[in-house]
Amino acid sequence: MMAGRPTKEKLELITQKIRPFPDFPSKGIVFRDICPILKDPAALNAVIELFEEHVRETCPGVQMIVGLDARGFLFGPLLAQRLGVGFVLVRKKGKLPGPTTSVSYTLEYGKAEVEIQEDAIEAGQKVLLIDDLLATGGTLYAACELMKKLKAEVLGCLVVIELTDLKGAERIKPNHVFSLVQY
Amino acid sequence: MMAGRPTKEKLELITQKIRPFPDFPSKGIVFRDICPILKDPAALNAVIELFEEHVRETCPGVQMIVGLDARGFLFGPLLAQRLGVGFVLVRKKGKLPGPTTSVSYTLEYGKAEVEIQEDAIEAGQKVLLIDDLLATGGTLYAACELMKKLKAEVLGCLVVIELTDLKGAERIKPNHVFSLVQY
Repeated sequence: MMAGRPTKEKLELITQKIRPFPDFPSKGIVFRDICPILKDPAALNAVIELFEEHVRETCPGVQMIVGLDARGFLFGPLLAQRLGVGFVLVRKKGKLPGPTTSVSYTLEYGKAEVEIQEDAIEAGQKVLLIDDLLATGGTLYAACELMKKLKAEVLGCLVVIELTDLKGAERIKPNHVFSLVQY
Repeated sequence: MMAGRPTKEKLELITQKIRPFPDFPSKGIVFRDICPILKDPAALNAVIELFEEHVRETCPGVQMIVGLDARGFLFGPLLAQRLGVGFVLVRKKGKLPGPTTSVSYTLEYGKAEVEIQEDAIEAGQKVLLIDDLLATGGTLYAACELMKKLKAEVLGCLVVIELTDLKGAERIKPNHVFSLVQY
């Protein structure tokens, strides 16, 4: 649709579609709303093309895209289809049937747990994780731990938005993060 | 990838990838797991191609695909991109920033609420709703009510799986359901 468009133009299109909402979901947080990206087929296509270009250049051997519940589901299957690979779901605890393995992590208040089906990924498979946004990196870190448990090889993590002040990229080291837009 | 493959073959490919899990999430329920569809790029492509063919034949004027949290997010953006239209999120209560409107509905035990951003759809826009599975139709019915509130025109609902015994199709009448696989 716009494969010829330069990277800078694609990034501008994407950035224009991200809306800030101060004090959501709680006081002091600026929520970055990606819904307008999804609503605009050209902007959504730009996101997937930039991810695809990055993956083809830096990790062409990827075998599986692993998406995080729920907004990673919006982008992951699109990228997986473009690359011709499968998509795997990491979900909040209790949503997946059959034998699963889980990792719990701490939130600002309390704990959460992410889960994956044990047969979702084979040992040694090369995977990329995807989510909409990297904040403190708690969920993404837990998802990386899930990959370790299944003996998958994490080639990196992809996010549309990175909130750099919150140092999520530090938390998930030595895994790398590729983000399209930084705040 | 497989546009030439006949419909019957595509449906077989999809059906083979749906795994039954008895007694999940609770006793007496047979959970139909779609994860293997997502893991197989050819099966996922078959789902989207069958949806796309149906939409182009029966409602070519669709302007927006509306997906239900969270498994509708797996298929909706793919279909929207194929059709060149936008994708809109219906989420569980409390997840969307800005002015929203919501509808509550009853579950077997208790209540749930779905929500949409007020500016997600304009009055008169033609939409299709999408989810992975139609059971009793509670969530899809509530999503149709959301569409009514925003004065959108619902052209129909798309699901991968329909559990016909639970009569979800009755509940969402006069809106139509198109399902790929029935149990």
